[in-house]
Amino acid sequence: MKVAVLSGGVGGARFVQGLLDVTDPAGVTVIGNVGDDVELYGLHVSPDIDTLLYTLGGVADDERGWGRADETWNALQTAAELGADTWFQLGDRDLGLHLARRQALVRGEALSAVTERFARALGIAARILPATDDRLRTWVTIADGELPFQEWFVLHRHEPEVLGVRFEGAETVQAAPGVLEALHQADLIVIAPSNPFVSIGPILAVEEIRSAVADRSVPSVAVSPLIGGRAVKGPADRMLERFQGGTSPSQVTSCYKGLIDALVYDESDGEVELDVRPLVTRTLMTDAASRRRVAETALEAAAALR
Amino acid sequence: MKVAVLSGGVGGARFVQGLLDVTDPAGVTVIGNVGDDVELYGLHVSPDIDTLLYTLGGVADDERGWGRADETWNALQTAAELGADTWFQLGDRDLGLHLARRQALVRGEALSAVTERFARALGIAARILPATDDRLRTWVTIADGELPFQEWFVLHRHEPEVLGVRFEGAETVQAAPGVLEALHQADLIVIAPSNPFVSIGPILAVEEIRSAVADRSVPSVAVSPLIGGRAVKGPADRMLERFQGGTSPSQVTSCYKGLIDALVYDESDGEVELDVRPLVTRTLMTDAASRRRVAETALEAAAALR
Repeated sequence: MKVAVLSGGVGGARFVQGLLDVTDPAGVTVIGNVGDDVELYGLHVSPDIDTLLYTLGGVADDERGWGRADETWNALQTAAELGADTWFQLGDRDLGLHLARRQALVRGEALSAVTERFARALGIAARILPATDDRLRTWVTIADGELPFQEWFVLHRHEPEVLGVRFEGAETVQAAPGVLEALHQADLIVIAPSNPFVSIGPILAVEEIRSAVADRSVPSVAVSPLIGGRAVKGPADRMLERFQGGTSPSQVTSCYKGLIDALVYDESDGEVELDVRPLVTRTLMTDAASRRRVAETALEAAAALR
Repeated sequence: MKVAVLSGGVGGARFVQGLLDVTDPAGVTVIGNVGDDVELYGLHVSPDIDTLLYTLGGVADDERGWGRADETWNALQTAAELGADTWFQLGDRDLGLHLARRQALVRGEALSAVTERFARALGIAARILPATDDRLRTWVTIADGELPFQEWFVLHRHEPEVLGVRFEGAETVQAAPGVLEALHQADLIVIAPSNPFVSIGPILAVEEIRSAVADRSVPSVAVSPLIGGRAVKGPADRMLERFQGGTSPSQVTSCYKGLIDALVYDESDGEVELDVRPLVTRTLMTDAASRRRVAETALEAAAALR
């Protein structure tokens, strides 16, 4: 079975972990968000892609929720002592990946090729691809103006109310090599439990990807990132409230109009009328068993809808 | 007393350490070599300037002879695991300085301003300035062609015979702010015990600096980097042999024609005829006392020649 997953960072990565437990990893292609990518110290940092690499490679720090396990912080601590602005935390091992990526990009390797190579080096059997190799950047409008995504998310701790989201480059970017093929060859398309606006939004902002999902000939299922109307982590609930007028499963499906045939959501969100098939389970992913349960429920959509 | 020192890396830094013990550090300006600077992973690495910062800041790894004490290597190890080419060793704390410098340079701060700021952050009372803020790069000609300095020095372990040295950018670079003032206001100019060709050479390749030294109205003294005709470290002896036909003190002075009035050299090099004043002592710097001895001998030149 071939599965193409659109995924943001932590929540998406945990879902994919479960998926790789219940289906052949060789058939899984993860299409990751690059809208939050940020240039720091001349290095290309790709937080969602890296969370996928670290989580699926088994080297993520699960407790902290980002970055690598067994991490040290000597480089950034030194930079701070020398007066650098170090609002974006980068551990030493994490930095090593950014150094390797920078070297590869400067030598002309595409982000997608680097990502695939790193995935192999980390022993990941699934394919991980950035949505695009081109420059795509998420900007967030707040009352004071517009901020690059990471400045809003990290520096301002995603506290300022989001009035709008813009994807710089969306008009011209192309899907990375392999992305459209993965969507066309998939038996099932899954939208992982990630923020619809700033994690999945940038992926679907790549017009070729949105069209490939909209014109699909196979089932597509989204997993809601909300549990009982609340985000497990991050600002998804506040953004749904503002942009869709609420945080129920039907408001999640509204984010994906024409793009999904089913929604996996948590039993705590009750029974609701949806214009796609509801698949209700417990969606909190705290261990391997719960991750597998969510992944299996998503896979059921393929059978139920075929 | 005001002293302007032209210095390369390790040997020069040790000499300056001694100098700061025997004269008021506030009167000392060190003009450092940037010909070996190298761009790695998009970062600006300035090995000789950094050796000065680390040594004078008391954070150098004296045993290894380069880089920082109490260093870890997680970033580069990770980069190597991910397939990066890591021929140039950078520890995590060292990387922190490069990150801070890259951030400052991108924000438009000059290399000289960054260097001064780092020196203050490291508690260094002397002034450390790069010879130039402009791009100046040392290239080494070997039988097979031309190599950037660090590729020859580190990657090829300075084994290939050097047929020539070229300083890219020398025709147009200007002395960094403060450098010419320091040379003009100095009571003594010192050329530290560094390689005349690839450490001091790039500094003197800045025409404004060479002229300021040539047109000096105060004594200028060089400290020979050779002991008994041999380099303490590095390829200075082989290069003197090839380019000056020998490694005696007189061949060292030939490197600095018109630029020095005295040469401090080691007693093991015997009594020789020089066209500048000879100042003979033991020049091996293994501890604070020996460093002070060499510095004091150089300072004597100021009195002897005034």
